[in-house]
Amino acid sequence: MVPKARSDVLGGLLAPYAQAVEADLAQWLVEPDVPAALAEAMRYCVLGGGKRLRPALVSMSAGAVGGDAGCELARRSAVAVELVHAYSLVHDDLPAMDDDVLRRGRPTVHVQFGQAMAILAGDALLTRAFGVLAESDEALAAALARELSAAAGPAGMIAGQVADMDLCPVPGGLEGLRYIHARKTAALIRGACRMGALCGRAERKALEAISTFGHSLGLAFQLADDLLDVTATAEDLGKTAGKDASHGKRTHAALIGLEASGRLGQELTASAIAALDGLGPAADDLRTLAKLLADRTR
Amino acid sequence: MVPKARSDVLGGLLAPYAQAVEADLAQWLVEPDVPAALAEAMRYCVLGGGKRLRPALVSMSAGAVGGDAGCELARRSAVAVELVHAYSLVHDDLPAMDDDVLRRGRPTVHVQFGQAMAILAGDALLTRAFGVLAESDEALAAALARELSAAAGPAGMIAGQVADMDLCPVPGGLEGLRYIHARKTAALIRGACRMGALCGRAERKALEAISTFGHSLGLAFQLADDLLDVTATAEDLGKTAGKDASHGKRTHAALIGLEASGRLGQELTASAIAALDGLGPAADDLRTLAKLLADRTR
Repeated sequence: MVPKARSDVLGGLLAPYAQAVEADLAQWLVEPDVPAALAEAMRYCVLGGGKRLRPALVSMSAGAVGGDAGCELARRSAVAVELVHAYSLVHDDLPAMDDDVLRRGRPTVHVQFGQAMAILAGDALLTRAFGVLAESDEALAAALARELSAAAGPAGMIAGQVADMDLCPVPGGLEGLRYIHARKTAALIRGACRMGALCGRAERKALEAISTFGHSLGLAFQLADDLLDVTATAEDLGKTAGKDASHGKRTHAALIGLEASGRLGQELTASAIAALDGLGPAADDLRTLAKLLADRTR
Repeated sequence: MVPKARSDVLGGLLAPYAQAVEADLAQWLVEPDVPAALAEAMRYCVLGGGKRLRPALVSMSAGAVGGDAGCELARRSAVAVELVHAYSLVHDDLPAMDDDVLRRGRPTVHVQFGQAMAILAGDALLTRAFGVLAESDEALAAALARELSAAAGPAGMIAGQVADMDLCPVPGGLEGLRYIHARKTAALIRGACRMGALCGRAERKALEAISTFGHSLGLAFQLADDLLDVTATAEDLGKTAGKDASHGKRTHAALIGLEASGRLGQELTASAIAALDGLGPAADDLRTLAKLLADRTR
């Protein structure tokens, strides 16, 4: 393992993006007239910390293509992507899904508020994500909603969850693992990058570069997550460790071992960074982020 | 009870709208690359019949304000609203929610496909609803998504479900019942009407008239639903009858009795129809629909 200091550097890189999105989340999450108990559950889902990786990817990608990372649409996109990510965790943790009781060092939403509230709060976050985008007056809002729906929808993230839960046939070996990770994790990460690039008014080639980056980064990220599930403690992770093995989930660690998995992760990270070759120094934050994510310890 | 023939007249009025939306649902529901098992579950959720009331309200409302009821945005709105309605039923029927096993005369989605698939298929329908809207190139798409998110979100339909599940405090008596029904049922019905009126490029006054109509119609509809739960058979309803009483739910029937409930329903229907006074004969289908819904037997 690399020293903990690496995770602190990662935290330092993400901090300003995280601060910006916290403020926007607090502002846009809860509309007037939401029942207090529901608003409390929604805030618990969303405001409990987390790296805020996806919002940072939106902003960094907008900047990487020469756009304004702080424009209203990029901020709305960052919030929308984080709301979708948060809802997916809440529903994923439900007893009928991964049945997990610990997330970010706290009881999961259904443990804290009951299953009915967890289902409804997740639904509310997903509905609100599209509302936050649609409340923009800019013409691009529909294109962003299209990206988000495709990334998070039944051909994207939800396909990955269906496959991960063994609810549909998946090829064996690395191919199947790639199928699941590309959808369950990389689809929304790639979507965040693409939404950022669209907000930055990227030309076709830059958008494609950012897409490829996001896809490879998402695969590398999920691979690192799998390895951390084996090597890290619950205290480090803020969630149950070793749960993939105990749930009989396919993982790279189980399939090809830790060492080969580590090499594959480095290859995916290198692919991600290589995709940015045409973008120059504006993409430096994305490059640094990709390197730090590959080496994170939590 | 009124004779069954009334329900057949209602069916006849809705049939052409239902046929149109069936075709659009089949076309837009499932994108390429959706896992077959997920696509099957989504189709089961959506294509199992039902009155298709909300899509009809979108079309009729577009026509009532002098717009083109068959324009692409109205068709997309009709599909989106029906997808949201379908997802809400799937999640509502889950064991942690209303725990129901029968819907439209068939096993509920979680009985047929398991709870994990029911959660994910519901999530997929909701995500897809906003995708179908966003796939339009017209500028109005964002305004429609804003309406849908507000109607179906945490200050709308989900607030009603939270209240209906006793997850937040609600006033006693008729006031509390009105609070729940306005959100749980009337919010999406009103939203469908408003989306139709927006597609029909309604002026402010016409949009307000349609909003008021939708709100009153939604309340009348839920009241009739409550009464049918007491008076009709499971065969008529296609879902479990008498379940409100067995679940200890607040209903008009329990609170003020069948007779007074019937009168209140007639008043709400009259309010709905009165709201359309400024709209002339273009709104005749909405008027007829309101009358027939009040008298339906299933």
